[in-house]
Amino acid sequence: MASSEGNKLWGGRFVGNTDPIMEKFNASIAYDQRMWEADIKGSKAYVKALQKAGLVTQNEMEQILTGLDKVFDEWSKGEFKIKPGDEDIHTANERRLKEFIGDPAGKLHTGRSRNDQVATDMRLWLRDTINTLKELALQLISTMVERAAVEIEILCPGYTHMQRAQPIRWSHWILSFFHSPELNFDSISINSMDATGQRDFVAEFLFWASMCLTHLSKMAEDLILYSTKEFSFITLTDAYSTGSSLMPQKKNADSLELIRSKAGRVFGRCAGFLMTLKGLPSTYNKDLQEDKEAMFDTYDTVHAVLQVATGVISTLMVNQPAMERALSPDMLATDLAYLLVRKGMPFREAHSCAGKAVYIAESKNIHLSQITVEDLQTVSPLFDKDVSSVWDYNRSVEQYSAPGGTARSSVTAQIEHFRTWLQAQKQKP
Amino acid sequence: MASSEGNKLWGGRFVGNTDPIMEKFNASIAYDQRMWEADIKGSKAYVKALQKAGLVTQNEMEQILTGLDKVFDEWSKGEFKIKPGDEDIHTANERRLKEFIGDPAGKLHTGRSRNDQVATDMRLWLRDTINTLKELALQLISTMVERAAVEIEILCPGYTHMQRAQPIRWSHWILSFFHSPELNFDSISINSMDATGQRDFVAEFLFWASMCLTHLSKMAEDLILYSTKEFSFITLTDAYSTGSSLMPQKKNADSLELIRSKAGRVFGRCAGFLMTLKGLPSTYNKDLQEDKEAMFDTYDTVHAVLQVATGVISTLMVNQPAMERALSPDMLATDLAYLLVRKGMPFREAHSCAGKAVYIAESKNIHLSQITVEDLQTVSPLFDKDVSSVWDYNRSVEQYSAPGGTARSSVTAQIEHFRTWLQAQKQKP
Amino acid sequence: MASSEGNKLWGGRFVGNTDPIMEKFNASIAYDQRMWEADIKGSKAYVKALQKAGLVTQNEMEQILTGLDKVFDEWSKGEFKIKPGDEDIHTANERRLKEFIGDPAGKLHTGRSRNDQVATDMRLWLRDTINTLKELALQLISTMVERAAVEIEILCPGYTHMQRAQPIRWSHWILSFFHSPELNFDSISINSMDATGQRDFVAEFLFWASMCLTHLSKMAEDLILYSTKEFSFITLTDAYSTGSSLMPQKKNADSLELIRSKAGRVFGRCAGFLMTLKGLPSTYNKDLQEDKEAMFDTYDTVHAVLQVATGVISTLMVNQPAMERALSPDMLATDLAYLLVRKGMPFREAHSCAGKAVYIAESKNIHLSQITVEDLQTVSPLFDKDVSSVWDYNRSVEQYSAPGGTARSSVTAQIEHFRTWLQAQKQKP
Amino acid sequence: MASSEGNKLWGGRFVGNTDPIMEKFNASIAYDQRMWEADIKGSKAYVKALQKAGLVTQNEMEQILTGLDKVFDEWSKGEFKIKPGDEDIHTANERRLKEFIGDPAGKLHTGRSRNDQVATDMRLWLRDTINTLKELALQLISTMVERAAVEIEILCPGYTHMQRAQPIRWSHWILSFFHSPELNFDSISINSMDATGQRDFVAEFLFWASMCLTHLSKMAEDLILYSTKEFSFITLTDAYSTGSSLMPQKKNADSLELIRSKAGRVFGRCAGFLMTLKGLPSTYNKDLQEDKEAMFDTYDTVHAVLQVATGVISTLMVNQPAMERALSPDMLATDLAYLLVRKGMPFREAHSCAGKAVYIAESKNIHLSQITVEDLQTVSPLFDKDVSSVWDYNRSVEQYSAPGGTARSSVTAQIEHFRTWLQAQKQKP
Repeated sequence: MASSEGNKLWGGRFVGNTDPIMEKFNASIAYDQRMWEADIKGSKAYVKALQKAGLVTQNEMEQILTGLDKVFDEWSKGEFKIKPGDEDIHTANERRLKEFIGDPAGKLHTGRSRNDQVATDMRLWLRDTINTLKELALQLISTMVERAAVEIEILCPGYTHMQRAQPIRWSHWILSFFHSPELNFDSISINSMDATGQRDFVAEFLFWASMCLTHLSKMAEDLILYSTKEFSFITLTDAYSTGSSLMPQKKNADSLELIRSKAGRVFGRCAGFLMTLKGLPSTYNKDLQEDKEAMFDTYDTVHAVLQVATGVISTLMVNQPAMERALSPDMLATDLAYLLVRKGMPFREAHSCAGKAVYIAESKNIHLSQITVEDLQTVSPLFDKDVSSVWDYNRSVEQYSAPGGTARSSVTAQIEHFRTWLQAQKQKP
Repeated sequence: MASSEGNKLWGGRFVGNTDPIMEKFNASIAYDQRMWEADIKGSKAYVKALQKAGLVTQNEMEQILTGLDKVFDEWSKGEFKIKPGDEDIHTANERRLKEFIGDPAGKLHTGRSRNDQVATDMRLWLRDTINTLKELALQLISTMVERAAVEIEILCPGYTHMQRAQPIRWSHWILSFFHSPELNFDSISINSMDATGQRDFVAEFLFWASMCLTHLSKMAEDLILYSTKEFSFITLTDAYSTGSSLMPQKKNADSLELIRSKAGRVFGRCAGFLMTLKGLPSTYNKDLQEDKEAMFDTYDTVHAVLQVATGVISTLMVNQPAMERALSPDMLATDLAYLLVRKGMPFREAHSCAGKAVYIAESKNIHLSQITVEDLQTVSPLFDKDVSSVWDYNRSVEQYSAPGGTARSSVTAQIEHFRTWLQAQKQKP
Repeated sequence: MASSEGNKLWGGRFVGNTDPIMEKFNASIAYDQRMWEADIKGSKAYVKALQKAGLVTQNEMEQILTGLDKVFDEWSKGEFKIKPGDEDIHTANERRLKEFIGDPAGKLHTGRSRNDQVATDMRLWLRDTINTLKELALQLISTMVERAAVEIEILCPGYTHMQRAQPIRWSHWILSFFHSPELNFDSISINSMDATGQRDFVAEFLFWASMCLTHLSKMAEDLILYSTKEFSFITLTDAYSTGSSLMPQKKNADSLELIRSKAGRVFGRCAGFLMTLKGLPSTYNKDLQEDKEAMFDTYDTVHAVLQVATGVISTLMVNQPAMERALSPDMLATDLAYLLVRKGMPFREAHSCAGKAVYIAESKNIHLSQITVEDLQTVSPLFDKDVSSVWDYNRSVEQYSAPGGTARSSVTAQIEHFRTWLQAQKQKP
Repeated sequence: MASSEGNKLWGGRFVGNTDPIMEKFNASIAYDQRMWEADIKGSKAYVKALQKAGLVTQNEMEQILTGLDKVFDEWSKGEFKIKPGDEDIHTANERRLKEFIGDPAGKLHTGRSRNDQVATDMRLWLRDTINTLKELALQLISTMVERAAVEIEILCPGYTHMQRAQPIRWSHWILSFFHSPELNFDSISINSMDATGQRDFVAEFLFWASMCLTHLSKMAEDLILYSTKEFSFITLTDAYSTGSSLMPQKKNADSLELIRSKAGRVFGRCAGFLMTLKGLPSTYNKDLQEDKEAMFDTYDTVHAVLQVATGVISTLMVNQPAMERALSPDMLATDLAYLLVRKGMPFREAHSCAGKAVYIAESKNIHLSQITVEDLQTVSPLFDKDVSSVWDYNRSVEQYSAPGGTARSSVTAQIEHFRTWLQAQKQKP
């Protein structure tokens, strides 16, 4: 009956030894030890419940609580020693508790499987860490909102399909990433999930992170584009750039490229975990152990990305003249169409007339604003001298004063909205 | 200036012809026509907004509304004819509207890009169809709950790691799939998403569907297992089975295998769409066109899976004797440990004692219930004649009477809870 | 015993009816009918094998072959009628064969399960279609190679990290997509796969397609970038562009955006199929039915992408002056370093000196080529008047004359290599 | 000009400091140091090429080679100290080389970007490690082949759709995983890939690993099933099982569940990396840094899985009586059909007759072998007394003597084939 498995939580009926490679394959202590605090918290709550249910005495509960505090202290001070056989954080903490208080430690596990314990620990850990991510996200949003406030006067091209579309305020671009400024943190509330074997909250966290980083990959793409020599709209500080070991003149936006890359990494974790879940028998199967490394790596990645993004955004330099040089009269073609609409022409027809004007300008190799009224009148007799009022970028952005528009008043209103919202977030418990 | 592009909504400045392969590559009418109703609804709302803003007159609005109703009628009756040049449902409906009412049709597009329109249509379409999916899901849940109510007396093994764990009620297995009975429909509410170029609501729908079908893949896996000859717990009706073209005796659970397979299909759509989104410049890019086929295919798949799952569950036959034969005394080893716990032994030690008892039984090749009290006392002197009370499966399931437990009272309470919840859902608007 | 299942290939022992929804869920005829030709080919080969094995007579074989030819004719002429109960292409063809030749048709299935037949059909179908894809790919490569030959004199910036790196030939960019010009067609040879239930060849095809389209997504990204107003390196013909329904001046590179988007679509199919395969019991399970739609959709997508890519590449217009304007002296900083290396300085130190020169030029807001020799000598005394030889883009590209380099001779050698290779490919069986 | 960046390989033109968070985000030394040997090997080859090209002298080359050997020694002995600023293994090794030999170290980088170096190192590293994986895979195959040889007499049910299909040899099941016994190692040959910025070989390795582990996930699924109480075909040794911390009698196949889970993990890495690659501009972008952790983690995972799988397979115990008890006469229904085929009936009709016989047996609740000849004759007059010859499992497996069949001779031939193949593999260079 003597067996080294006797030291394992489940060793009673086992007589053989575990293959050492299998032991390592099976162990999670290398990565799950970072939940040490959640594990102790969870055990403290659990022993109180056991006492209420009459399964441990008041005295036993107190011994266990005191013992758990000692374990906590060791971890806090970096003095906890992991020993062979500590296959996961739960085993390690219980082993140490037993060394401190002896037999009563054995009562802590009454009616609780390790699987329950793992799920509880993960939920506690994730709840705390999501708060950290939320704070970092709020810091990024706040940085962007304040930048938008300061640079509200700067105009630049708005792009769709990477082609110049209409003039916008630079602040409008910044704020465009917050159509849903709450970053949907509520969608990963993990209160409702309570069953062993269920790892929905992990999968949802991984997907939330994937969506979040996919959005940031798009912001990074825009900024990488804007930092090319050809656009020259922004310059990254050296603190967020790197050079080339071959080409001395290079200054690369590595920080943004790394941000862009991480959407893939995190979504890969999500894809991997769902593939692991697919077709499993219900209840607990060891396959679920894949949940933890996915969760930790995703957390670390989002954590770093949010910090670096905040750093990049808060320090990049805007090249206002380059932005303004990039405004060209053809970007006012829509306004030209609206001029006709205001004179009663259906939009579809006005759009076609403006398109023909663009074609004339291209054919003559002149700016759209340089076409003569006479030429315009060949397209539509509704054109008149008042067409000159169209060629004004400021006027153009100011005309969109609806909520979400490019007018100064609209942008300002959005900034105020976000400031209020940020204030409210910070005051949440 | 003459150009075939002149018929396109955006053709004014274009002089070349589109390559026919490109035309097909670019067109979405083949699949987006199923949003015809949403598109008309959206346009009706839009023209009313235009009228309020003074951009169309009362009279123009009425003409447009009447025209749109005619277009609606044609679609309803299956009489709408798609013509060359109708590259998408929006173009098709607007073209037809123009044929009905002439020039005023051209005003409908004022200040609205097709991209806005696409996003609006998709949101409207998805809102309706999610309601359909919800109804089908409620039907499945209802079927399962009522089945659980009827078959509450049947005991069967509960499994973890596919190994017999503890006895449970068959109803407990059925209900175990509803830890979050609302199927999290609220998490895909799509009200808050309102920006052009944002397709978060599509991605979230695809992920919601992936999670939903991953859960069903697990239920299918259990049932496929239970329908093997070796388990023989259930038999599918012929209506949900198929045979083999080679082996005459075969009866295969194809329905369940198809259900199991669809988690992959739908998650593949989600993975593909996120990969498409990754690193795109912000605002609209044509890449987003991938959203629609992913959404439609996912909807159709979930729709079929929910229906077939309901059919399978409502018609399968339970083999109660086989389930009961599969209960074995070693599944009561936990109860044996609790007997010692009730006599004061810490759980961890009691677990080890029960493990040793299992080992003795295996060594002697007898059932755990057949070990003599004398043999048990070599493991722990606390064992006594009262150990015989442990060997009763009914007693075992009845002892777990906490919420979510296996006692009849617990299972009944859950059934009542779900009935009430289902009732409430049906009464929602 | 009377049962509608009696008409199914496997219906002998079945007495219930199939649920109509299940029937549709189970049926694959809607999509697998496109393998009609492969199915008939496979059956013709199979019946010959049966005859050799003595399992059908010479006469029966001839009847079956003649009957199969009639079925073939019907499909060719578009006259084949699918009937209720034809759940897949194999059933449909066998049913029709029986209508033509009666009882002997029943011998065709001897010792062959439908699963064998499906796998054989798919392999035959894929082998043919891969040849089609290969031809399209060769056409694309040929188009690019010939374009590279014609435009070999055009210089443009080479980019890394989207930042200007060193001057290159435009042809060098074009050819850079063919480091492995065979597009690795051999890696999807599907000869070696021969087991029922094995769908590795499908998974490999899906992955090959994903890699292929990922490469094209990168080429598309470059070209979208080059077609921005800011770069203005290329202009797409109208045939591959579309406009905006809102903004009359827009000309969007929709063709390239669609190409870029398809990598996600196809990889989603691959991800979905692998998720479906994961953890299946070995041998055949109905889950494998997911293979066909994934394969067909992937084929269609790659087919369209290759055609459109060829169209775009062959018709786009290069703006040579814009490319040359984008060459700037700082792109010669590496050459400046090599000047010092040739004078004996270690490269790492020379790199640092050139970096300092770049810094001086930036500080003085002048071009790198405008720094005086005196200023350069503050960085290193090795600088001399001969530095002026560095400021010549043509000289710069000509110095890289190793295989794969930017010198005219290197690029020409590559073009010749690819022409020879293409010639050899076309002559392959 | 004084700047901490001066120590970086690319620091010449940089004046600001890097943000410490960015520095960590950017650094890869934490994981890429495991390529230290490949990096030194690559540098040794490179300096020889530089000497041949006249870019370093014979003397400089010798200094560099000697210095690199010293760096090698430090790593071998575990004495290499990573210092702040060593952002990757290449920088670290070059920094140390310079400390050893001074200025000539600076010549090693002539004409080589770090990106070239990274790609070379990865290729060298992967080539070696794939050989290690190949050896482990051969060991697993060898274990399985020898097990198949020893246990060739054991019969068990063959399953399709998890339903009993036809009797097979247990060895036939074992060998069924090697339809392509070479595990397609050649498909990941990485010789042909040679361009900077190309990471196809990484993607292909990740996909190869995904396919490999997907196959093993299926084998694990079968074995988990076979180790259930209900099947009881096999028992895992304690060395590859674990218990439950709650239920003393549990013995879980954790090793197999972990194997099953890893397909998801590895494919997640593949999915993540392809998503990262999608739509990148061509040439090098920092996004590619995601390649290394994906490659290392995948290698480690496959390494562990192959070892554990070998351990599980070599130690599991087969329960021959349980396997034989699971053989039932209905599994001979196909043979019953073939009896009629041999008497001239078309297979399709014979299949139907055998199906009816199965139905009769089920209706009478008797074994198929217990139906009287009289009853069989109601199905077909061709049935006669000789039907009794059908009810023999040994005869059934022996009749499939074609290659890949279940006859002893076929299985033996396969074993011999694999032994020869394994021998050949071991003798490869």
